[in-house]
Amino acid sequence: MTTLEDLKGFFEPENIAYYGASNMMQKFGSLHVVNLLSAGFTGKPFPIHPKEDEILGFKAYRNIKDVSEKIDLAVIAAPTKFINPILEDCGQKGVKHVIVLSGGFSELGNVGGQAEMKTIADKYGIKIMGPNCSGLVAAPNINITHVPWPPRKGGVSIISQSGTYAMQPMIAISSKIGTGISKIVSVGNEVNTDLVDYLEAFEHDDDTTCIGLYFEAVRRGKEFIELVDRINRKKPIVIIPIGQTDAGMRSAQSHTAAITSPGYVVDSICEQTGAIKVQNSIEMLSLLNGFDSLPLPKDNKVAILTMGGGPGSLMSDLLESHGMRVPVLSEELQEEIQPMLPETASTMNPIDLTYSDDMQNYLNEVPNILLKSNEIDALMFYGLMGNEYFKNLTNVPDYMQENESVQTMKNFGEMMIDFFIALFEELLEFKKQYQKPIILTCYNTREELFVRWLQDHGIPVYYPEEGVWVLIRMWQYAKFLQSKK
Amino acid sequence: MTTLEDLKGFFEPENIAYYGASNMMQKFGSLHVVNLLSAGFTGKPFPIHPKEDEILGFKAYRNIKDVSEKIDLAVIAAPTKFINPILEDCGQKGVKHVIVLSGGFSELGNVGGQAEMKTIADKYGIKIMGPNCSGLVAAPNINITHVPWPPRKGGVSIISQSGTYAMQPMIAISSKIGTGISKIVSVGNEVNTDLVDYLEAFEHDDDTTCIGLYFEAVRRGKEFIELVDRINRKKPIVIIPIGQTDAGMRSAQSHTAAITSPGYVVDSICEQTGAIKVQNSIEMLSLLNGFDSLPLPKDNKVAILTMGGGPGSLMSDLLESHGMRVPVLSEELQEEIQPMLPETASTMNPIDLTYSDDMQNYLNEVPNILLKSNEIDALMFYGLMGNEYFKNLTNVPDYMQENESVQTMKNFGEMMIDFFIALFEELLEFKKQYQKPIILTCYNTREELFVRWLQDHGIPVYYPEEGVWVLIRMWQYAKFLQSKK
Repeated sequence: MTTLEDLKGFFEPENIAYYGASNMMQKFGSLHVVNLLSAGFTGKPFPIHPKEDEILGFKAYRNIKDVSEKIDLAVIAAPTKFINPILEDCGQKGVKHVIVLSGGFSELGNVGGQAEMKTIADKYGIKIMGPNCSGLVAAPNINITHVPWPPRKGGVSIISQSGTYAMQPMIAISSKIGTGISKIVSVGNEVNTDLVDYLEAFEHDDDTTCIGLYFEAVRRGKEFIELVDRINRKKPIVIIPIGQTDAGMRSAQSHTAAITSPGYVVDSICEQTGAIKVQNSIEMLSLLNGFDSLPLPKDNKVAILTMGGGPGSLMSDLLESHGMRVPVLSEELQEEIQPMLPETASTMNPIDLTYSDDMQNYLNEVPNILLKSNEIDALMFYGLMGNEYFKNLTNVPDYMQENESVQTMKNFGEMMIDFFIALFEELLEFKKQYQKPIILTCYNTREELFVRWLQDHGIPVYYPEEGVWVLIRMWQYAKFLQSKK
Repeated sequence: MTTLEDLKGFFEPENIAYYGASNMMQKFGSLHVVNLLSAGFTGKPFPIHPKEDEILGFKAYRNIKDVSEKIDLAVIAAPTKFINPILEDCGQKGVKHVIVLSGGFSELGNVGGQAEMKTIADKYGIKIMGPNCSGLVAAPNINITHVPWPPRKGGVSIISQSGTYAMQPMIAISSKIGTGISKIVSVGNEVNTDLVDYLEAFEHDDDTTCIGLYFEAVRRGKEFIELVDRINRKKPIVIIPIGQTDAGMRSAQSHTAAITSPGYVVDSICEQTGAIKVQNSIEMLSLLNGFDSLPLPKDNKVAILTMGGGPGSLMSDLLESHGMRVPVLSEELQEEIQPMLPETASTMNPIDLTYSDDMQNYLNEVPNILLKSNEIDALMFYGLMGNEYFKNLTNVPDYMQENESVQTMKNFGEMMIDFFIALFEELLEFKKQYQKPIILTCYNTREELFVRWLQDHGIPVYYPEEGVWVLIRMWQYAKFLQSKK
């Protein structure tokens, strides 16, 4: 069984040797070093280079064996033919963890090259991530990838059999969903560590609350299914299958040398284990963000508090057609909230405020009453008057700039920040106190300060249609757990 | 029949009277005026206010009848009880177009108030948009809404029976999809202009290439279906139905006073007319962006050019399970492109480059060969090395800042801009020359300069899963047109 301790060289390295970094900034290896350093890595990089004496300000070495310090991890981006000789050097140096980014092995039919890699690794007791992979992230300070956006630290861990999918969606996370990441691993051709190893390690990782898998092929089917079955009862597992049609399989085969598993295999795994199958990265990262941030709903009754009828209707439709309910509130409850709403509001549920600028009622008073009652198990909002709403005040024509009221109000956004954040903090208290999921939806993204603040502190923010799906799937998972009790 | 000329006062107003603007910036009416001016409106606002002499730097009037200039349009945000008296004033002043943002009429049971509004409007020949609506956009210079983001000018027009949905998704457009907008109309309670009127006007609007509908209720069923049937053969119509379950209908009823049409009505309309039903705003705005920017595919064969195997597989899977094909390229074609690809690349289709920094080949040479051939009808990319990839160069630790190569490369992003844009311009030429759709997918959004440039010039950029759906639906529409020939 693989433990986190066995993989420590990957996730907590101090001294890292880099093959492929140079003073050419656009090169893959150079981007890697820059990304690592700008993520706040506190250890030291040791560039290994055949010609240079200094790379990016660091002393460069001709051979890893020339380094006097202990090396915890070597990262290799080099032409295929150099990889195994480099690995031999790493073995002699005593390096126990190596990430091979480069491809050109089984996925291109070079089975011999990959077998030789395994032989060398076994000889020296090296654990390899890859070859043909995209590296790893251990938030917040370890970013061994070519993608510059380091995610915020959270409880979501991802294991991917697609290098691209391991790392690229981080961009979407950073710019839109704000999912909090613990670890991301790109397993590549899995020469001697595979999906199952990382799953085993994450089962007992206290920093991991839930797990996402980009899944192409079962190499150790029995172990995999048993593991998923066991882990999923403690930490939800979300799976995206990749490579299910002829062209998809052809593509998958060419890039990880795997025989892909047809869709029905994944369906069957999910049915047996309760793991959750989704279709795409945004769904997966949104859902994992929900699992990581929120308590599970205890039953299926949802209150919708909305600044617009359309989103209220759309969310109701989706919830009610997928096993959840948006019940008409009791008369008592309706009477209690009515004084806090505009005269044009509907109190039945969805509670449609039409438009209100009373944020205290919208974000605190009404939510408190709803969450306290036993008539609902979850609360969804639509609408957030973000501070960007006031950004046009800086765009008005010159003749308006001097107007006194424009002057006064220019700082309105600034002034409102403290006020809003106090309301958000109270909302977080409600989440803790009542242990019910709270989801906010709007069409703003992380560019907006308030969205960023909420996501970073544990109130997920999505587009309305996405937020509803998160809640529906969390409820399906909660029901699954209840059925196993 | 309603023509664009009949609605000119809405879409091309010069002098606009505003009820509800004040020197309190956070008020709805004030936001409206600021948004209008910052969108580049070249006409003049006339605030009407019971007390103030000057509002936001403009002379304010006690009554619209005190204004000596001709008023093309009045916009009213005021308490319900004042609306009809204001309308009477507008009528006496000779105003022919009025937007009533305020609610409190049929949607809250105030049928009498709404009937009186209609009587006044008929007496003076006033066309009303609303009441209980969110205003309109006529890109690029007319933004009569509370949402500050003015969209870029394009050919997409949207008619919405949900005020929120009319305007809020503009935020997503602005920050993510970049859909080019011609007009957006929020019809509200439709007191004397309705969905059918605006559809009629847009049928012959040269600025409108395709139409989106947020649809809750058929008020003039026969006319509506005939119109959709006729228009959809020239300009694709995309429909989102809202309000299909008990809670959804309850919500819809409370906010537009409409009896909603169950889902099967919309399904039946789409089946009869070939209009396209989608589930949510992002799907609709993505698809309309495709229709507005791209030629239709002539057949179902797609080439995928990808920087990562995972997205290639996912896109192949989706395309092949929905009636499109990702055919293995002929040996001749494979031989022709092979020299332009890295040694680790797969040439079969998906054409998986794994990773390449030769942008000339990726964005121009290989696409030209593929598009020229008769083996494919559409081209999809995955991967865009955006200029943001180099942003971490400004985040490196201090001791690296002084390094010569870091210094040199700091401007790398800048230097690359002209180079990339020349490649993009060539790609646009291919689109014109070969008349085949080209879609780029990645996880970057409009924050990224290259994404923005491409979207604004007619190459749509989406997440991979969304881009595939756009192409599938464009192909389904193309087949529908072919079947009608």
